[in-house]
Amino acid sequence: MLYIVGLGLGDERAITVRGLDAIRICAKIYMEACTSLLSLGLDPSALPNLEKLYGKEITVADREMVEERADQVLREAADADVAFLVVGDPFGATTHTDLVVRAKNMGVDVKVIHNASIMNAIGVCGLQLYRNGETISIPFFTETWRPDSFYDKIQNNRRLGLHTLAYLVHIRVKESTWESLCRGKKVYEPPRFMTVNTAISQLLEVEEAHGGSVHGRDSLCIGLARLGSDDQKIIAGPMVKLLDVDFGPPLHCLIIAGVTHPLEEEMLEFYMIKW
Amino acid sequence: MLYIVGLGLGDERAITVRGLDAIRICAKIYMEACTSLLSLGLDPSALPNLEKLYGKEITVADREMVEERADQVLREAADADVAFLVVGDPFGATTHTDLVVRAKNMGVDVKVIHNASIMNAIGVCGLQLYRNGETISIPFFTETWRPDSFYDKIQNNRRLGLHTLAYLVHIRVKESTWESLCRGKKVYEPPRFMTVNTAISQLLEVEEAHGGSVHGRDSLCIGLARLGSDDQKIIAGPMVKLLDVDFGPPLHCLIIAGVTHPLEEEMLEFYMIKW
Repeated sequence: MLYIVGLGLGDERAITVRGLDAIRICAKIYMEACTSLLSLGLDPSALPNLEKLYGKEITVADREMVEERADQVLREAADADVAFLVVGDPFGATTHTDLVVRAKNMGVDVKVIHNASIMNAIGVCGLQLYRNGETISIPFFTETWRPDSFYDKIQNNRRLGLHTLAYLVHIRVKESTWESLCRGKKVYEPPRFMTVNTAISQLLEVEEAHGGSVHGRDSLCIGLARLGSDDQKIIAGPMVKLLDVDFGPPLHCLIIAGVTHPLEEEMLEFYMIKW
Repeated sequence: MLYIVGLGLGDERAITVRGLDAIRICAKIYMEACTSLLSLGLDPSALPNLEKLYGKEITVADREMVEERADQVLREAADADVAFLVVGDPFGATTHTDLVVRAKNMGVDVKVIHNASIMNAIGVCGLQLYRNGETISIPFFTETWRPDSFYDKIQNNRRLGLHTLAYLVHIRVKESTWESLCRGKKVYEPPRFMTVNTAISQLLEVEEAHGGSVHGRDSLCIGLARLGSDDQKIIAGPMVKLLDVDFGPPLHCLIIAGVTHPLEEEMLEFYMIKW
């Protein structure tokens, strides 16, 4: 049996009792890469905290391992109970559909243990989740790569009065640089986390380039950092006012508000920046 | 401090370790009505199971109590640690924004402990959550009340190729009947849970009335029952083929698929009804 266990958000104690039960009967425990640890607010050196609570040794599976050695993990799961731990929910922001499909095709039973995801935890800011439109991802712009396909999606959502959740998830951990690949070497870049500030500045740049009126300096946004942890930070305000707010360590995400309702506004008021 | 603790989905062991920690330091524990117990797959008589795991006595707060006596609960939370337990996530399908706003206005500190919600657990069927449009609710039709405002929302979503999650949440528990209110008595109806079958039959009726082409007998839907529990049931297929499928006990929900991607289809295939 392959248990895919959602670890939730915040720290190691966000795991469910069901999840703990599963881990404790498993012969082998895998956990996806360091980025996950970081988004649990943990330095990779804090892995022992998880192992202590869970009572098991954890093999950290970086992205290469998940892609290259998934079949090995699945073969193990064919004969024994194996757990694969993922931050948030197994089908939240980062989905593990491919792993489930491979497992089922190999005849390996899969059990999913759900947990909180960024997708539902953002509701804490007061905006109603059912009024979210399509979710977008905002990647880091480079000199030569400034993709803006999210622009049309924001426009569609705003035309319908809906909110837009933006993942700021372009994280590079243990990815080879282009240069090092050319030289045939694997050299890894340090992780780069996108901030609310960078995301907003890119959004404003794209809006200017389109000369449109989808959103602007005065559009209401909500920046959210480290959701679910004790030091989570949520600040709402016009885009331009959030440009210089320090949201602190990762992970960040951003919501571009659509039409807001009175109850949503009452709650947002608690998070509104003064200007 | 008021702790609003998400209990997750499935059974009492879906609670997080953080949630358990909170409950165990609280002087008083409230839990929202019987409907919640039922959606945890539990008969109200199973309340002792929760109390045993949590190690605390639980006061079940029905809808009247939450609305009429919230201030009393909040006054208790001003002086002591009080937990309010909600099924799923505190800001998922049923939001508790109003309780948080009232608490903050009274100067009571609030701590939210997130958990899985129907909103993210539906990802288990293979459809990607980021491709969901606005969420709709489908209420029970009566002889004289057949609201269809959800129709335009499905249309908007499908025009954009997005999936539509439909809550089937018209549950009547301890609500007075119209007749009994007229007589000045409080007589309560038994709970009524909407099934996937009823929802689809109402959707087809509304489509016929509009004479449109938003969805039809052959539109791909996914019915989901008791998500997160050991006997959850997920079946995908054309609307008309799901009309007679027995999804078993509550709670049910329904997804009307938009444009599907290959990885989504690979996963859906495991749940597809044979016809």
